[in-house]
Amino acid sequence: MDPTRAFVKSVRRVVVKVGTAVVTRSDGRLALGRLGALCEQLKELNNKGYEVILVTSGAVGLGRQRLRYRRLANSSFSDLQKPQGELDGKACAAVGQSSLMALYDIMFSQLDVTSSQLLVNDGFFRDAAFRKQLSDTVNSLLDLRVIPIFNENDAVSTRKAPYEDSSGIFWDNDSLAGLLALELKADLLVLLSDVEGLYSGPPSDPKSKLIHTYVKEKHQREITFGDKSRLGRGGMTAKVNAAVCAAYAGTPVIITSGYATDNIIRVLQGERIGTVFHKDAHLWTSIKEVSAHEMAVAARDSSRRLQVLNSEERRKILLAMAEALENSESMIRLENGADVAEAEEAGYEKSLISRLTLRPEKISGLVKSIRMLADMEEPIGQILKRTELADKLILEKISCPLGVVLVIFESRPDALVQIAALAIRSGNGLLLKGGKEAKRSNAILHKVITSAIPDTVGDKLIGLVTSREDIPDLLKLDDVIDLVVPRGSNKLVSQIKDSTKIPVLGHADGICHVYVDKTANINMAKQIVRDAKTDYAAACNAMETLLVHIDLSRNGGLDELVAELQHQGVQIYGGPRASALLNISETNSFHQEYSSLACTVEIVDNVYAAIDHIHQHGSAHTDCIVTEDSEVAETFLGQVDSAAVFHNASTRFCDGARFGLGAEVGISTSRIHARGPVGVEGLLTNRWILRGNGQVVNGDRGITYTHKELPIKA
Amino acid sequence: MDPTRAFVKSVRRVVVKVGTAVVTRSDGRLALGRLGALCEQLKELNNKGYEVILVTSGAVGLGRQRLRYRRLANSSFSDLQKPQGELDGKACAAVGQSSLMALYDIMFSQLDVTSSQLLVNDGFFRDAAFRKQLSDTVNSLLDLRVIPIFNENDAVSTRKAPYEDSSGIFWDNDSLAGLLALELKADLLVLLSDVEGLYSGPPSDPKSKLIHTYVKEKHQREITFGDKSRLGRGGMTAKVNAAVCAAYAGTPVIITSGYATDNIIRVLQGERIGTVFHKDAHLWTSIKEVSAHEMAVAARDSSRRLQVLNSEERRKILLAMAEALENSESMIRLENGADVAEAEEAGYEKSLISRLTLRPEKISGLVKSIRMLADMEEPIGQILKRTELADKLILEKISCPLGVVLVIFESRPDALVQIAALAIRSGNGLLLKGGKEAKRSNAILHKVITSAIPDTVGDKLIGLVTSREDIPDLLKLDDVIDLVVPRGSNKLVSQIKDSTKIPVLGHADGICHVYVDKTANINMAKQIVRDAKTDYAAACNAMETLLVHIDLSRNGGLDELVAELQHQGVQIYGGPRASALLNISETNSFHQEYSSLACTVEIVDNVYAAIDHIHQHGSAHTDCIVTEDSEVAETFLGQVDSAAVFHNASTRFCDGARFGLGAEVGISTSRIHARGPVGVEGLLTNRWILRGNGQVVNGDRGITYTHKELPIKA
Repeated sequence: MDPTRAFVKSVRRVVVKVGTAVVTRSDGRLALGRLGALCEQLKELNNKGYEVILVTSGAVGLGRQRLRYRRLANSSFSDLQKPQGELDGKACAAVGQSSLMALYDIMFSQLDVTSSQLLVNDGFFRDAAFRKQLSDTVNSLLDLRVIPIFNENDAVSTRKAPYEDSSGIFWDNDSLAGLLALELKADLLVLLSDVEGLYSGPPSDPKSKLIHTYVKEKHQREITFGDKSRLGRGGMTAKVNAAVCAAYAGTPVIITSGYATDNIIRVLQGERIGTVFHKDAHLWTSIKEVSAHEMAVAARDSSRRLQVLNSEERRKILLAMAEALENSESMIRLENGADVAEAEEAGYEKSLISRLTLRPEKISGLVKSIRMLADMEEPIGQILKRTELADKLILEKISCPLGVVLVIFESRPDALVQIAALAIRSGNGLLLKGGKEAKRSNAILHKVITSAIPDTVGDKLIGLVTSREDIPDLLKLDDVIDLVVPRGSNKLVSQIKDSTKIPVLGHADGICHVYVDKTANINMAKQIVRDAKTDYAAACNAMETLLVHIDLSRNGGLDELVAELQHQGVQIYGGPRASALLNISETNSFHQEYSSLACTVEIVDNVYAAIDHIHQHGSAHTDCIVTEDSEVAETFLGQVDSAAVFHNASTRFCDGARFGLGAEVGISTSRIHARGPVGVEGLLTNRWILRGNGQVVNGDRGITYTHKELPIKA
Repeated sequence: MDPTRAFVKSVRRVVVKVGTAVVTRSDGRLALGRLGALCEQLKELNNKGYEVILVTSGAVGLGRQRLRYRRLANSSFSDLQKPQGELDGKACAAVGQSSLMALYDIMFSQLDVTSSQLLVNDGFFRDAAFRKQLSDTVNSLLDLRVIPIFNENDAVSTRKAPYEDSSGIFWDNDSLAGLLALELKADLLVLLSDVEGLYSGPPSDPKSKLIHTYVKEKHQREITFGDKSRLGRGGMTAKVNAAVCAAYAGTPVIITSGYATDNIIRVLQGERIGTVFHKDAHLWTSIKEVSAHEMAVAARDSSRRLQVLNSEERRKILLAMAEALENSESMIRLENGADVAEAEEAGYEKSLISRLTLRPEKISGLVKSIRMLADMEEPIGQILKRTELADKLILEKISCPLGVVLVIFESRPDALVQIAALAIRSGNGLLLKGGKEAKRSNAILHKVITSAIPDTVGDKLIGLVTSREDIPDLLKLDDVIDLVVPRGSNKLVSQIKDSTKIPVLGHADGICHVYVDKTANINMAKQIVRDAKTDYAAACNAMETLLVHIDLSRNGGLDELVAELQHQGVQIYGGPRASALLNISETNSFHQEYSSLACTVEIVDNVYAAIDHIHQHGSAHTDCIVTEDSEVAETFLGQVDSAAVFHNASTRFCDGARFGLGAEVGISTSRIHARGPVGVEGLLTNRWILRGNGQVVNGDRGITYTHKELPIKA
């Protein structure tokens, strides 16, 4: 649950207010779909034991509709030709209120809920006896699980117009709802609006951001309101006034959209939707309100300062980082130990705890790899291509950082250090979000690492995102964040791909194949197959499917391979052909990532059939051929369209460290930008630099293009 | 409007059927929100002059709820301890029907619509007099704009259970709706379901695809139904049976989701949602049902065959393509002339017509550039990096095609030829969607080009998408399409980015700056500024903002620059400083792409201020400095973080052809994959090839990594 919404856990009594813009359609008639969804939600809350009070607008508009129709029905033809006067507002209210209540009554009855009507005037509230009586009545109704439905008693009110002659007690249904929330000691007031909540500017302006938590000190001046809502008396200004009043008097308020069919339920589940008003909000903000956007912008600004440094200065930051890690080892192990102890207590799996634990050799390994990165050739500003476009007009394509990278990783705190080192080497800003089980480890590592960043760059270069709830906000920032790297389960990667426009680098599936050709050295094949499946069965580069040439099923080769795997405790499933032949159970699907000591075996007729199988069922991660026939090997290497294709070597080699890339950001099966294991290069892009002495295009007249490739070293 | 939905234009009488799964919530109570939205939609149709007939389920479930409650209220404590028998279904129907109708009545009344109830039994339909009477009654109601609401008269039906004793006339509300649609001569039957329509497999399986148009001959065998819907008698099998029956007897049917609040309206606007059943559907399919998915898969298969060819064979395809273009010039100009004539008649802008027209020199230019591409060094299979990982374990990083690229372009038919040539050169499959104004030109060019593709590859390598409605389907195929390139307006690019998970290459804004430093040669500056703004003002690489060093405002340089622009007819807007100084009108925003003879001028204090301005307000497309001070120039070139940064040369040089890249796919301001003008290289990615002799990882024990970089030429 979002920490700014934790208070909803203790909510028991809730006031919900719906305004005219929610209750009414654009044609002035009732929005029956939205009203229905409102009743369904209130019924659900009532069932769950919440005490629900509704404040509803909409009666006057509804009455106006009815009376217009009535006037038409009463009219003679000559009446209709006369100009039609405005309908009396009080009359509209009288007609509309009974009509509205009849609808609520039948809707709630359908849901086995009893509702009741309470019409109040503002003057009443001056009278203490009235307030006491009202409170008692509402309590009696709520005890019987009846929903009280409030509205201003407009029909018999003597106020002339809203605002003009306000008594200062309440002047519209927003302020009535606020007043009732306080009088009836509600734990929460939900104001349903026609927009998602309070925005920093007019909601129609794409630059306006939804404010999740209203802080009076901060937002009172900043916010510019758009036009008042078309319908109803309230609008957002009125809602914010009512919300601030109620919140600072003790009842928290959430403004959210009444257009969605489940927002009230979501609010009470603690989801971060809408805008919350709470008297303690200013206390939360030190943790929260460095908003995702500010964090990303700060990382970008710092990354630009990092790029301005020369290569030696960036190298020194990495060396300082390595030293800081060494010097802080005991502190890091202390914090990591606390995470590990908590994870053990919570009964996490052994493999997770092993990934979580920062043993001394892991830390020294990290230090070593940072020093290796420091000594690597400068990757930024490399000239990739140099062309003379025309006389004295020289074009260069040079490498440069991507900008800001968001990395979301699970459990391994060492990933934080690796990725941070890669980011500094490649001149990028970084936002990191680690798993909650490594919370303390990540915090100390982040502190140690950023201590090595000089003030000229600023430690906001590497931001540590601490709240899960910030992720959706970050994923929206496609104008500031350039790449997202999710390192974790298939589910995490898919979810992130589904919810952002920012390019995502990663792999969802790792369905790797080993194809053993008829010409294979069978001992080598056994060795490779064993390693590919059992060296680390849960890895994404582990073998999931073994394809075997048909001839090997006749000369005993297949049996040897299967026996080797079974000897290692691997559970074997067959494709249709293999399962018939070997009498083993058949797999459900060839597109199967076991991630454990299990694999699929199938028989294929030749290398082309193997290639087709891989294209049809694989995930284009890593695939391997075992053969002594180099022609067959080259066919396989040339045609298999995967990020990594191997001949006579285990699929487990597909890894940044084993590939000699230094640290690894992740492995990509995307075809765009970076593919396979991704190191520093994957965090770089390029720019085009053109140096001339006054050349202009002028319709391409008067310039003679030479387009001569020049040597890269100037 | 989608051609498969064109028939809805002539629909006047429509039968809508809602089943229990739509009308009821998961807890068995009425789904008031959905019912409300249903009534709102029917009211809207009624208003628009449609004749609306509703067939509704839900009464039995509703009655069961009510009777349970009734039984509870009637019970003594000892009654409650006895086991509770099942409630009588007929009794439930009797109670539920009146309750359901009461709700419809009040909902429709709120919308000023009158509804009516018609309960029928299946036996009645044997009687011709009954059928005539029913039809007369419904006609009378519809004449009065009253909505007839049908249900089976379950309470007094003698049928024992659905299916078991079916009379064969109707047996559930789906078949009743189909029967009524025919009896009442409806023009359309809409069956509302709890899923989007008919899928090729169980809707929960992500591989199942929504079938837009049901073709009996094709789909009858293919489709595998999932479990029957949990609620109601019908389920999808029943719906399809009813739909096939009605459609082939003359009333078209659309199955769509009743969960959305506006699907009935959308169906009647001809949107391609849900599944349509129409007796003529098999006639449409020759045009339509090469589905987007099949097209993309065919392009991918062909691209794999293209990759298998050797370099010389691919070169020959390009040469054949160039020749085919030359030989077909007169035919191409004929078809293009027809497009141009039509565009002129439709009163399109001159600039569009100029882009549309294929003059002889444009065609010969295309032929020339294809021949240039043919003679280019082979881009596929280039070794980019070569590393010895360990003894006899050699890793290569090689270039390879992306896979399948979808290009969406407007008006310029020559783009089709350029992009197709690039795709063949780079071994990619291609899907092309051109503007409708170039329909005939694109069709002939596509035909001519694909005629040059040998049968071993297949002409489906390059697919021409002819219907706009296919675009949303194509954008969903992130498993088959690897890159989308929209070439057109900012709006087009943004829309596409918003609606796909496939990486998008393109630029939305082109806000290019020229910064004139105090040390600039002012004549050179005038020349560059004039060219950058006026060579082609609507181009994305045209200057939009001129930044001028403060010193030039004191020595007359600024005045000269402004005069030069004004002399060319450029409308000048100032930033706050420039507008005060020059007494010109102030711009609304620095983030302004005029795309016409207009620009913003602002004064900055120095090169750093210029860089900050560009970072804050630019779009990272192309920015230029004019200066004689090489140190200042290098600061600008080094720090401005745009795709292209120029010194003393016009921004208009930022272009694939001028950069010597041959043809151009587009210009990218994305930081991922390809940046700036994109030629062949932007259609390539890489693979890792590892050649060993049996090496395994085995926990990295027993292997000695050398990680030695090897020369690229083996």
